Amino acid sequence: MDLETLIATVREQMPERRWVHTQGVMGTAVILARRFGADPAKAELAAILHDVAKFWKVDKMEAAIREEGLFTDVLNYDKELWHAHAGAYISRRDYGVEDDEVLGAIRYHTSGREGMTLLEKVVWLADLIEPGRQFPGVDDIRSVAENDLDEALVAGFDTTLGFLMEKKKKIYPLTVLARNDLLAGIKNTN
Amino acid sequence: MDLETLIATVREQMPERRWVHTQGVMGTAVILARRFGADPAKAELAAILHDVAKFWKVDKMEAAIREEGLFTDVLNYDKELWHAHAGAYISRRDYGVEDDEVLGAIRYHTSGREGMTLLEKVVWLADLIEPGRQFPGVDDIRSVAENDLDEALVAGFDTTLGFLMEKKKKIYPLTVLARNDLLAGIKNTN
Repeated sequence: MDLETLIATVREQMPERRWVHTQGVMGTAVILARRFGADPAKAELAAILHDVAKFWKVDKMEAAIREEGLFTDVLNYDKELWHAHAGAYISRRDYGVEDDEVLGAIRYHTSGREGMTLLEKVVWLADLIEPGRQFPGVDDIRSVAENDLDEALVAGFDTTLGFLMEKKKKIYPLTVLARNDLLAGIKNTN
Repeated sequence: MDLETLIATVREQMPERRWVHTQGVMGTAVILARRFGADPAKAELAAILHDVAKFWKVDKMEAAIREEGLFTDVLNYDKELWHAHAGAYISRRDYGVEDDEVLGAIRYHTSGREGMTLLEKVVWLADLIEPGRQFPGVDDIRSVAENDLDEALVAGFDTTLGFLMEKKKKIYPLTVLARNDLLAGIKNTN
């Protein structure tokens, strides 16, 4: 599938405002990829696909996750996490994406994980700070992201965890492990 | 060992200000135990011993945890967690405490865990809200604790997690699981 066809296919699966967000993530992911030495083309491809399943019906997301059968534990957590796994699965199954780096960046763009790859970090952060995002503290994270990818991610995870606590929602343990892992890396290199 | 001897033994292992805190936990644990139907005598015993290892040298805490050999993963996390496990271990080994409920309340008084017992909840909360504690929000938690033990614990865990994030410290995954588990319980009963 060529890129224009893929973009059209993804776009028709979401409302226009989400497509605007996706375009923001595409642009930001490319900028961050160049800044921190990831592959800009892979970053853009992952960005195009990251929210492909976001507006699917819950049943369809669940069916995709069960069909893949590898990450069914997310079904016990917030539905916000589901679209990332469903999206990664159908990116391979239906859209011919075979690159594990790209698929990982789609799969972990919401939860993060321990041992995130450079591309996963870039897409995770791009999703959080693309120009359309407006939440308290986002400019501080953008500012940290000028220089330090890992510190920007820690600040981003702290925002995410704070949001979950405020809403009295469950916290996915992998997200905490992702943050711990980044902190350990920051301490070892400073 | 009779209670007076135990108290004297514990007291000499900590500075006076920590003994004042321990007395606060003893009183609060008894009140909470009566309020929520736990055994006040067990709550008091766990409270006496909860911080027995708090002012041990780090090497001594680590040695106790390695000697017990069952909870060595905490050695990868904040040292704040170590004294709880060291304390539970030596409460059994040196002070003759055989009651698993009491030992659990000592062991999990800092981290919490999934499936906390009533006594574990009481001691965890007493440690957080005893009269000597003064942190932003403590009165709100005290107020929730008048009526709802689990909700008070969730509010307490949120405070703890917020503190760890602010200090850029690692979060022990068991603490997140404890909070998730309490939230699930609250949702099922409301």
